[in-house]
Amino acid sequence: MKSPIPDYLAEVLDNCGADSGERADHIPQLAAADPDLLGVAVATVSGSLYTAGDTDVEVSIQSVSKPFVYALALCDLGTDAVDAKIDVEPSGDAFNEISLDPRTGRPSNPMINAGAIAANGLVTGNDPGHRFERVLDFVSRLAGRQLVVDEEVYESEMSQVYRNRALANLLRSHDIVSGDPEDALRGYIRQCSILVNCKDLAMMAATLASGGVHPISGERVVGAQVNRRVLSVMTTCGMYDAAGDWMTNVGIPAKSGVSGVLIGALPGQVGVASFSPRLDPHGNSVRGVRIFERLSEDMGMHMMEPPQPGRSVLRSRHRQGDQEVIELEGTVQFSQAEAVVRGLDEQPTDQGTVVFDLSRVYSINDVALKIFREVHQRLLDDGLQVEVRDPDHVYDSAI
Amino acid sequence: MKSPIPDYLAEVLDNCGADSGERADHIPQLAAADPDLLGVAVATVSGSLYTAGDTDVEVSIQSVSKPFVYALALCDLGTDAVDAKIDVEPSGDAFNEISLDPRTGRPSNPMINAGAIAANGLVTGNDPGHRFERVLDFVSRLAGRQLVVDEEVYESEMSQVYRNRALANLLRSHDIVSGDPEDALRGYIRQCSILVNCKDLAMMAATLASGGVHPISGERVVGAQVNRRVLSVMTTCGMYDAAGDWMTNVGIPAKSGVSGVLIGALPGQVGVASFSPRLDPHGNSVRGVRIFERLSEDMGMHMMEPPQPGRSVLRSRHRQGDQEVIELEGTVQFSQAEAVVRGLDEQPTDQGTVVFDLSRVYSINDVALKIFREVHQRLLDDGLQVEVRDPDHVYDSAI
Amino acid sequence: MKSPIPDYLAEVLDNCGADSGERADHIPQLAAADPDLLGVAVATVSGSLYTAGDTDVEVSIQSVSKPFVYALALCDLGTDAVDAKIDVEPSGDAFNEISLDPRTGRPSNPMINAGAIAANGLVTGNDPGHRFERVLDFVSRLAGRQLVVDEEVYESEMSQVYRNRALANLLRSHDIVSGDPEDALRGYIRQCSILVNCKDLAMMAATLASGGVHPISGERVVGAQVNRRVLSVMTTCGMYDAAGDWMTNVGIPAKSGVSGVLIGALPGQVGVASFSPRLDPHGNSVRGVRIFERLSEDMGMHMMEPPQPGRSVLRSRHRQGDQEVIELEGTVQFSQAEAVVRGLDEQPTDQGTVVFDLSRVYSINDVALKIFREVHQRLLDDGLQVEVRDPDHVYDSAI
Amino acid sequence: MKSPIPDYLAEVLDNCGADSGERADHIPQLAAADPDLLGVAVATVSGSLYTAGDTDVEVSIQSVSKPFVYALALCDLGTDAVDAKIDVEPSGDAFNEISLDPRTGRPSNPMINAGAIAANGLVTGNDPGHRFERVLDFVSRLAGRQLVVDEEVYESEMSQVYRNRALANLLRSHDIVSGDPEDALRGYIRQCSILVNCKDLAMMAATLASGGVHPISGERVVGAQVNRRVLSVMTTCGMYDAAGDWMTNVGIPAKSGVSGVLIGALPGQVGVASFSPRLDPHGNSVRGVRIFERLSEDMGMHMMEPPQPGRSVLRSRHRQGDQEVIELEGTVQFSQAEAVVRGLDEQPTDQGTVVFDLSRVYSINDVALKIFREVHQRLLDDGLQVEVRDPDHVYDSAI
Repeated sequence: MKSPIPDYLAEVLDNCGADSGERADHIPQLAAADPDLLGVAVATVSGSLYTAGDTDVEVSIQSVSKPFVYALALCDLGTDAVDAKIDVEPSGDAFNEISLDPRTGRPSNPMINAGAIAANGLVTGNDPGHRFERVLDFVSRLAGRQLVVDEEVYESEMSQVYRNRALANLLRSHDIVSGDPEDALRGYIRQCSILVNCKDLAMMAATLASGGVHPISGERVVGAQVNRRVLSVMTTCGMYDAAGDWMTNVGIPAKSGVSGVLIGALPGQVGVASFSPRLDPHGNSVRGVRIFERLSEDMGMHMMEPPQPGRSVLRSRHRQGDQEVIELEGTVQFSQAEAVVRGLDEQPTDQGTVVFDLSRVYSINDVALKIFREVHQRLLDDGLQVEVRDPDHVYDSAI
Repeated sequence: MKSPIPDYLAEVLDNCGADSGERADHIPQLAAADPDLLGVAVATVSGSLYTAGDTDVEVSIQSVSKPFVYALALCDLGTDAVDAKIDVEPSGDAFNEISLDPRTGRPSNPMINAGAIAANGLVTGNDPGHRFERVLDFVSRLAGRQLVVDEEVYESEMSQVYRNRALANLLRSHDIVSGDPEDALRGYIRQCSILVNCKDLAMMAATLASGGVHPISGERVVGAQVNRRVLSVMTTCGMYDAAGDWMTNVGIPAKSGVSGVLIGALPGQVGVASFSPRLDPHGNSVRGVRIFERLSEDMGMHMMEPPQPGRSVLRSRHRQGDQEVIELEGTVQFSQAEAVVRGLDEQPTDQGTVVFDLSRVYSINDVALKIFREVHQRLLDDGLQVEVRDPDHVYDSAI
Repeated sequence: MKSPIPDYLAEVLDNCGADSGERADHIPQLAAADPDLLGVAVATVSGSLYTAGDTDVEVSIQSVSKPFVYALALCDLGTDAVDAKIDVEPSGDAFNEISLDPRTGRPSNPMINAGAIAANGLVTGNDPGHRFERVLDFVSRLAGRQLVVDEEVYESEMSQVYRNRALANLLRSHDIVSGDPEDALRGYIRQCSILVNCKDLAMMAATLASGGVHPISGERVVGAQVNRRVLSVMTTCGMYDAAGDWMTNVGIPAKSGVSGVLIGALPGQVGVASFSPRLDPHGNSVRGVRIFERLSEDMGMHMMEPPQPGRSVLRSRHRQGDQEVIELEGTVQFSQAEAVVRGLDEQPTDQGTVVFDLSRVYSINDVALKIFREVHQRLLDDGLQVEVRDPDHVYDSAI
Repeated sequence: MKSPIPDYLAEVLDNCGADSGERADHIPQLAAADPDLLGVAVATVSGSLYTAGDTDVEVSIQSVSKPFVYALALCDLGTDAVDAKIDVEPSGDAFNEISLDPRTGRPSNPMINAGAIAANGLVTGNDPGHRFERVLDFVSRLAGRQLVVDEEVYESEMSQVYRNRALANLLRSHDIVSGDPEDALRGYIRQCSILVNCKDLAMMAATLASGGVHPISGERVVGAQVNRRVLSVMTTCGMYDAAGDWMTNVGIPAKSGVSGVLIGALPGQVGVASFSPRLDPHGNSVRGVRIFERLSEDMGMHMMEPPQPGRSVLRSRHRQGDQEVIELEGTVQFSQAEAVVRGLDEQPTDQGTVVFDLSRVYSINDVALKIFREVHQRLLDDGLQVEVRDPDHVYDSAI
């Protein structure tokens, strides 16, 4: 049987609507991109990759590099040191990319250019060359293959980098960047010039979706705390001044780049990447946005959508001789554990043995586990016996 | 057995740290509040309510009314009509609560005062009295009991409502509010003067967490689309200029009020409310913020935290005579369905019958369902038979 | 002989170019104004009045009332008390008429609406009625006749005064305005509704030009210090966001109103008023601006134009027997007095009497006078005699 | 006799109050300045120079170079071309020196750093070296001696020029500056590093005061139109965010520099310069501001102060046989000419000859002259004869 998922993705591309907008034109390499290129890739947290369209075409990663270099700076220096230099608040202002705190010079967040230049400057290394090697290595590990820089894109960008040079120097004047601001500027432009395709980007996003562990290599590339912070900042600041709009319509952490790339990460599920060069006035890919809206709708990806209710976790509670058997099933989180406890509170077992049958339980999270341990102890304190049927060691393994 | 959950909440209160900050002092009723009051309530989407501390004390709801009246306006007029008057973008600016688009006068979002006044003005009704009746009825249905207005608070607020009157008149000058702006202003101040306790607030939040359906009455109070939008806006704009900070540290949609109340909603799980009158400089309850940070950490509530991985959804795949039995379990979403399909794609069944055994499956979402239906058809097309063992009608019921 | 001055003014009107722009349309009374009305009036500091065109037509004074009510507030409370509530800095921002200091709420200057409402609120009086009586009396004394309010204009403005009511309430929230903000608002709208014609306005401007003394009545209506401050603020803030443009092109303190009126004051010379209802995008009368540009050019009114150099103030210095006669003439200010002193320093008189012949001196200012007194004493100290020929008592009278 | 003017200036220094504030400390050369240095110089439009205190000490000119380089750009390119790149409006904002139009990138005015860098970039020349030669030559001609650059100051400034480099690059990104923005940046820093003393600065200011003609050399260094524009911009923008305050308190066009220098120009009278290194929070010399306040008060320099009224310009009007003699005196401007004309209009001469005796007239300006010519013609038209007694050729020379 052939998997229907690639067919679905192909259908999404077929129906993502008439294109409009304009390619980025500030450098010849982007202005000359084939505007009809179109691709989408979905990578699951278990490492499967599905694609449709032009997902092997390499383009410069541009602003999609921002969350990853921010992650590297957080890994290198820790949250407090990075927070002291870069805030995590949405800037609100569209036209004013400068967005520095007027007193401290701290950029509003790491998703705007100023914040991204600052983040590049925070990556540790012996010298600018070493620092960039570390960036390229980090991004390559996320992509799962060795990436390279498009030197022509880099040179083009550097030849007219006036606005970003202004930002780098403003940051230097506030000591947000130290040393020669040209180093952070060049490092930032180089990171934006890394060549990626849709598959790379989907895998990078899937790493964020799986909490920082690479779906295929199994390597923890990003620390859990850092990963959470990066996704949080993508949620509130990833789509510039359209952040609120994106949150209401699509509802997943995302980041776009002027080369027409767009990534999104749904925690615990998938990383998604799209590519289509024409941009809307916010600088986001026109068809990319539509692809994400469609996927969000079809796949129930919106984070504000409550999960579809399952059967009650309490499969049954019945008396077997001296035993009161409580049979659970499915995923047990707080509200499921609570339901079980409530039953024991309202209709207590008087005597004998309470049996928790977990053989149909799929997973159990920390807070539910803590509740069960406490319940276990309380039942013993009430003079009852407790037995746990746990053939798959769900309970044991979680301890 | 006594439930350990209230004990846990009591312990959280005991350990939420030394208090600091100042009570709101712009009206005597808030300035005179007992500053040591402290309470927390958690309501599950299945209707259980747990409390600790002063959860019966009634205070004015203040800004926590904002997401609910915004929801009512959305229910009344639809998304497009409300969007035309109120944007959904974080404003970024702390000090400048005015935050109107300089050209159109559209407030940045419905969580700042200007946006909330506009939202009140959009609620339909025959006259100001009828409009407020509808607001009070709506909020009461969310709380699950008939609420009332604290007329003294209302009168106090109205006696020095200068800044909000300024906002109402600015909105009127831009035709964001129509008619007499004093109507929207009074309506807004009255909605802020509704008396609630922590239990009410937890139940209101739990309704949002359950997608708009009241956990106890089972009534759909808020439409699914509207509910999603309200939670989205709370995520990016609910904590004023500390939105980014809250998102990184706590990671759930939330809203605070100057009376010291604070609510949060974790989709599919719980609504939480806390109460402690002393406020930090952002206007958020000092101990309330700490309570939420603790609960988020303990209960794994942060939306950017991937769910704890369960066992593989594919419990087993084995040959029984002419049958290839594929035994699934747990919660089946996209990435789980994908894993099953991948197996069938990579190691196809050559002949006979494919049996999907769903008897241990807890829930299955839309996208997974679509995938299974498609797989079902493709297997038939490949000349195989398909049998579904689904004693609990998980598959059927979802269709 | 008929004076050529009215002919000149008529010619200026004839040649002030094709009209364009739009009448103010926020109230029917202004929207219905005859757009072709055109008038100009020039009043000298000695009380002569020259006019051309429609200078008897009465219109509401609108924002031209602002400098005068600011003057009254300064007279009532003194500079420090008024400065504490209203700053004197140009706001720069065009679109954002709010222009309040975000921390203190102090308006940028008294020429924007917020500052003008604040100024109205500072005028002293027993009650709102009395306060307005004092405003009307003050403006009437400046105009030289009893003025009245156009009640229809007042009612129209009040029926849609939302933006200004917003400003009044913002000011009240910052305690810039005290009491009921509606009082300052109504007072401000009433002051804008006072009916004036071009002659009135020219006379009001001429009073400012003569340092605060009414050219005809001789009454000191505005204190000298207050008058200077009012003219200073008109210079930097009188033409909204076109202040710099006006300063470079016209170069005199001025104020415009949306009814199409425009005044300017050239210290020591004239007050000028024009009237033409069509406005440019800044809200200034299109033909009014052209009339002022023409008058400034023709009459050498630009304050940055140095006065035409006269003959040397030292008419002659010659020996008559034992006397060294120093014959002065014309206007003696610092640089003229300095020239005389320099001569005495470089080529000292050895003996006998120094005679200062002032019979051809027209005026002598304070600093020149101080210099001459000091010179007088030093010559005596050097053992010389000094004689002053001053048939018109220029020297004596200035003492 | 020794001139009392230097004594007066020495007394002003003695009484300019206790010093406070801090030296600029961004470069060692300024941080190490002797903070007790204090000097003042006054140059008249006729070329006299008076000094007190440390007026020979050379310091870098810093921002006082701005109006002069702006003047040179205006001379080179004309008003329209310069206006297209640099506006003339006060920026209002203190903290935000960036002050570029968000759409066009045009700096608010040439007195802020961004505008000054843009002005430097507009000076014509074959290459950066030639352009700076022209700047240095221009400023030297204004000072009346060959000035030189302090290379140490230049190098220090360049070693930490981050903020200004940011501005230069922002300007380049908007095509306000063309070519390499480093050229305009270096040119600007070099112009700020020119060494001047108080005497130089007083002479430069006196050239502006005399309409652009150097008081000693008699050379026209600045065109009349350009000179007027430069003084206008100094009036509204010369003292940063304290422009309104300076206008109300001192009332003359001025410019300050962080080395502690301060210049002012009173059209037709004097140029003034002071020097004292300690600065107030606006960046203006603390004692310098006090010196100017004192001089303005003592010398009647405030532009909004009407000139002291002189005797009536109409000395007498009397019949001598067939002649009606009208004897004028003093300075004749519009309001004086008008007074004469009014007399002839109200009490016409019936027959014979009208004699204008101008032998006591000191100066007559253009508009007065035009009036007299017109009157002359009208009297002839009325059938009268006209005779002009003008022994000093005031009337003739002005024609």
